[in-house]
Amino acid sequence: MSTATQNIVVNKVEKSKIDQVDFSNLAFGSIFSDHMLVCNFKNGEWQAPTIEPYAPIQLDPAAKIFHYGQSIFEGMKAYKDEKGSTLLFRPKDNWIRLNKSAERMVIPEIPEAIFMDGLTKLLDVDGDWIPTNEGSSLYIRPFMFASGNGFHASPADEYKFVICTAPSGAYFSGKVKVLIEEKYARAANGGVGYAKAGGNYAAQFYPTQLAIDRGYNQVIWTDDNTHEYIEEAGAMNIFVRIGDTLLTSPTSDRILDGITRKSIIQIAKDAGIEVKERKVTVAEVVAAAKSGDLKEMFGAGTAAVISPIAGFGYKNEDFDLPELENPYAAQLKKTITDIQTNKSEDPYGWRFEVK
Amino acid sequence: MSTATQNIVVNKVEKSKIDQVDFSNLAFGSIFSDHMLVCNFKNGEWQAPTIEPYAPIQLDPAAKIFHYGQSIFEGMKAYKDEKGSTLLFRPKDNWIRLNKSAERMVIPEIPEAIFMDGLTKLLDVDGDWIPTNEGSSLYIRPFMFASGNGFHASPADEYKFVICTAPSGAYFSGKVKVLIEEKYARAANGGVGYAKAGGNYAAQFYPTQLAIDRGYNQVIWTDDNTHEYIEEAGAMNIFVRIGDTLLTSPTSDRILDGITRKSIIQIAKDAGIEVKERKVTVAEVVAAAKSGDLKEMFGAGTAAVISPIAGFGYKNEDFDLPELENPYAAQLKKTITDIQTNKSEDPYGWRFEVK
Repeated sequence: MSTATQNIVVNKVEKSKIDQVDFSNLAFGSIFSDHMLVCNFKNGEWQAPTIEPYAPIQLDPAAKIFHYGQSIFEGMKAYKDEKGSTLLFRPKDNWIRLNKSAERMVIPEIPEAIFMDGLTKLLDVDGDWIPTNEGSSLYIRPFMFASGNGFHASPADEYKFVICTAPSGAYFSGKVKVLIEEKYARAANGGVGYAKAGGNYAAQFYPTQLAIDRGYNQVIWTDDNTHEYIEEAGAMNIFVRIGDTLLTSPTSDRILDGITRKSIIQIAKDAGIEVKERKVTVAEVVAAAKSGDLKEMFGAGTAAVISPIAGFGYKNEDFDLPELENPYAAQLKKTITDIQTNKSEDPYGWRFEVK
Repeated sequence: MSTATQNIVVNKVEKSKIDQVDFSNLAFGSIFSDHMLVCNFKNGEWQAPTIEPYAPIQLDPAAKIFHYGQSIFEGMKAYKDEKGSTLLFRPKDNWIRLNKSAERMVIPEIPEAIFMDGLTKLLDVDGDWIPTNEGSSLYIRPFMFASGNGFHASPADEYKFVICTAPSGAYFSGKVKVLIEEKYARAANGGVGYAKAGGNYAAQFYPTQLAIDRGYNQVIWTDDNTHEYIEEAGAMNIFVRIGDTLLTSPTSDRILDGITRKSIIQIAKDAGIEVKERKVTVAEVVAAAKSGDLKEMFGAGTAAVISPIAGFGYKNEDFDLPELENPYAAQLKKTITDIQTNKSEDPYGWRFEVK
């Protein structure tokens, strides 16, 4: 453990609540570990981070988070391997992306040392909260938001960086059906779609609710201008297998640069699968579904891992995907989770052991 | 005062902080009155509202406001007339619009009685905070946000509705120069641009900062697809006077249905000014600026009132607007503020006396 990590002040809970948790039956992100990391930005700089008992945050009613949505987050997962080591997956990429989001939302960037040392120390303190049963993990939520106040619509002068963790099971339960959106949109050209900005998520709730009411789980977003191109699914990037080729939309200012997405592209290519990052049209997906060339669709994201899609709806028509014997989704999911949980070699240097 | 209003529980501050305030020198929205209205949504319904001392709000670190930006707001102003009566302007329109925003962001709608009675009671309790000097007013900020927690990206199960007030001076100081945006965008087709959603505002901070760094105060947003059409300025709708005709963009799912905007359209028409609500191209504004036909541009909004624009930038070129003797902006501002402050008759029934 680095000197910096050792220097982080830890105020421990008097009594852990871990014995109240049924680790064999975890929902996603609804139970929270004993502690959180808190770091405040004021007087133009980040102050010393501390680890505190998980407890309510006090905010002025005029704090800009309430009024102007100045907030960003990341999603990560911690695993334990058979030796009991705590493992992360490409954590520095989350730190880099958090700061890309920060720049776009005019939130001060968080130094690497605060992010990495704070995270490491928090996982050391709450290491017992990492589930070990298959399909579960400790979901990690770093987030930053405007705590400074004022009704002028301009950036705040104070911010909070917080990391909370939640022992979690699968994000989706059961088969995932998606609706390809033809009216609503998630992101504008020149907007903030590529950032993990809070407001991007609430903006999806209403169209998603309409889709859920029609029997789907998620919306696949299309471009706001023509609705002809598939973009992402809001909580995950989308891959489409037509024949033996895997297609996914290129990242842009509307599409999140997913860490699972880029890892899957690498793994698939190295497994000899042809992967094309190019614009994917709704028309070609529908045509392939009709001709039988559409073999698979799946979502990829930290929370969703690889989520196979069982079928999709478009313009009042439903399309089922075939059930393959050995789908790409299952192969790729096994490869990435084996790397994440230290069940296989990691030729990429993606796994990060917390020490 | 209605029975419902009388029934709102009021927990008064022990000691008012009003004597610390310099009412002759007010900034915008940075000093807050003694009390706030708070109403909680839980177990599927809005609970009884209360008036509390203005004090920090406690929220779970996993409250969805922090993570998914599920928040909306309104902006209103209270004035006192010469008789000491408290006046609002079209308050029911704010309530209606707040609920339109609520629907889009999947926040439970607030009943009219809670909104209107809560507001009325709050202004009764904090009536002394309404500034009386010209150009100042009590800025009122009703807002609603997700207080329920969880890391699943879906609507929360608990919400807070809060009204705070802030004695305020002008939103802009000095001349306003704007930049017509050609790269970034505020809103997507089929998105949430028409809602007063928190995330719409933070999304504007970065491009606005770039404009400020170049010597402008605000950005005039254009459509995200072609950047050929003028939309709104984020904190205000935009009016352009070419010759003697006043032009403003029609409202859409990208443009806020401003209460000041629609009031100004009505007042201008009744004053015999030709007003056209139609798409306004950047090209025609630039051409009119070059030919001398561009007489005025101004913003209209609750915070900004009517803010004359002294000049605009577009593609590295700057255009100054002429200084007219009796501009529409000044005429319209006088008419609307005289109605708001009871210095003139109100033929429209817009003024609302708080009783």
